[in-house]
Amino acid sequence: MMNRAERIDYELFYWPGIQGRGEFIRLALEQAGVRYRDVAREPGGLKKLEKLMKRGASAMPPFAPPFIKVGDLILAQTSQILAYLAPRLKLISGAKADRLYATQLQLTIADCVAEVHDTHHPISVGEVYEKQKPEAKKRSKAFVSIRMPKYLGYFESILIAKKYAEPWLVGDRHSYVDLSLFQLIAGLKYAFPKAMRRLEPKIPSSHRLFERVSKLPRIAAYLASERRVPFNESGIFRHYPELDR
Amino acid sequence: MMNRAERIDYELFYWPGIQGRGEFIRLALEQAGVRYRDVAREPGGLKKLEKLMKRGASAMPPFAPPFIKVGDLILAQTSQILAYLAPRLKLISGAKADRLYATQLQLTIADCVAEVHDTHHPISVGEVYEKQKPEAKKRSKAFVSIRMPKYLGYFESILIAKKYAEPWLVGDRHSYVDLSLFQLIAGLKYAFPKAMRRLEPKIPSSHRLFERVSKLPRIAAYLASERRVPFNESGIFRHYPELDR
Repeated sequence: MMNRAERIDYELFYWPGIQGRGEFIRLALEQAGVRYRDVAREPGGLKKLEKLMKRGASAMPPFAPPFIKVGDLILAQTSQILAYLAPRLKLISGAKADRLYATQLQLTIADCVAEVHDTHHPISVGEVYEKQKPEAKKRSKAFVSIRMPKYLGYFESILIAKKYAEPWLVGDRHSYVDLSLFQLIAGLKYAFPKAMRRLEPKIPSSHRLFERVSKLPRIAAYLASERRVPFNESGIFRHYPELDR
Repeated sequence: MMNRAERIDYELFYWPGIQGRGEFIRLALEQAGVRYRDVAREPGGLKKLEKLMKRGASAMPPFAPPFIKVGDLILAQTSQILAYLAPRLKLISGAKADRLYATQLQLTIADCVAEVHDTHHPISVGEVYEKQKPEAKKRSKAFVSIRMPKYLGYFESILIAKKYAEPWLVGDRHSYVDLSLFQLIAGLKYAFPKAMRRLEPKIPSSHRLFERVSKLPRIAAYLASERRVPFNESGIFRHYPELDR
């Protein structure tokens, strides 16, 4: 029988070396304080990830990382992984309406993340950024002037509509969606520091939520640890000064 | 007391004049044979849609259409709407693993749909296609040569792995995900007829699934009705010959 203290409940599979979409899941696992393995960052782990993605390797083969393995279950798609984990990690309330709303918001965050990715890859994921720089400049301009304010303004409006002082996005306690909004804002501050400084006065509630999440003791410990991969120019949130005008 | 035959169970809110993301929900409602209202296509309906999107109009304001109204519940995000409706519409099996897998596949279809949209809008949703044509040509080339085969090859591999003759994507009966794959293929055949003719020999199982769905009696009746908005160049799937090389 395994020692309970050594039991691993969750295995996360994501590309090593970047935060990417895997980071939304890491933040939830870290805040829950559960034991998990970040498989592809262990020696030989990337091969395990690739093996599980092969046709026929499982009953539910993923299209792309991130995916998790919980017992025999393999589950892909960030928003769905979080919707599945959140009740188990006590990162969402038990109310059905809250869970539906959380998924809705998480999917909207995912839509924004996909658009952030395309600011540096507007033409093809098969080509490096340097081959699509002129188009990336145009797309980034449209993103920071129209889309970024629209998405962040939406989340801000939800926080403003709450009737108490330090609101969370869903219900009256922090949920996984707050961790995800933290990550979205952290990424945008890294990628587009100038544009975000201009936008910040318009989203004060979101900024305060960002600060509160960063100070949750487990999140703060995680961010200071080596488990947090630094932002870099291989991930989704990339800082290219020429795209941040 | 209302006559049961006249009771409306579902209200769909989506931009009139296009199939768009709303079509994935229409197909599910049509196949289920339930009574629903396509609100924004009724006189004065667009105003109702816009009203419900205003800040403070509901406890769960949507970021964008489509959204549905079921009693007091307002729910947005196509994949989540379908995951919510499917058990009620008997368009997914009762097995937990099947439901998780269906959501995973639907989210992957949604990712592909977003990429299809960007073939004609690679730079900005705020500008017309004609203002981003050179970039659209490049993005479309990458999409039809790399991404479209990757996505459709993934769904094909799932069908091939099934052990019976006329497979469906989830379990052994048609589900809402099959309707969505039908719609994705229908849209791609409309937008990129040449590229799809080249790809078709490589995805025979998907093509047969497409044919089977189109012949489901309720789907066939719907497709022949005026309720089915024709594909056009305002929607997500647009046919611009210059993008289909």
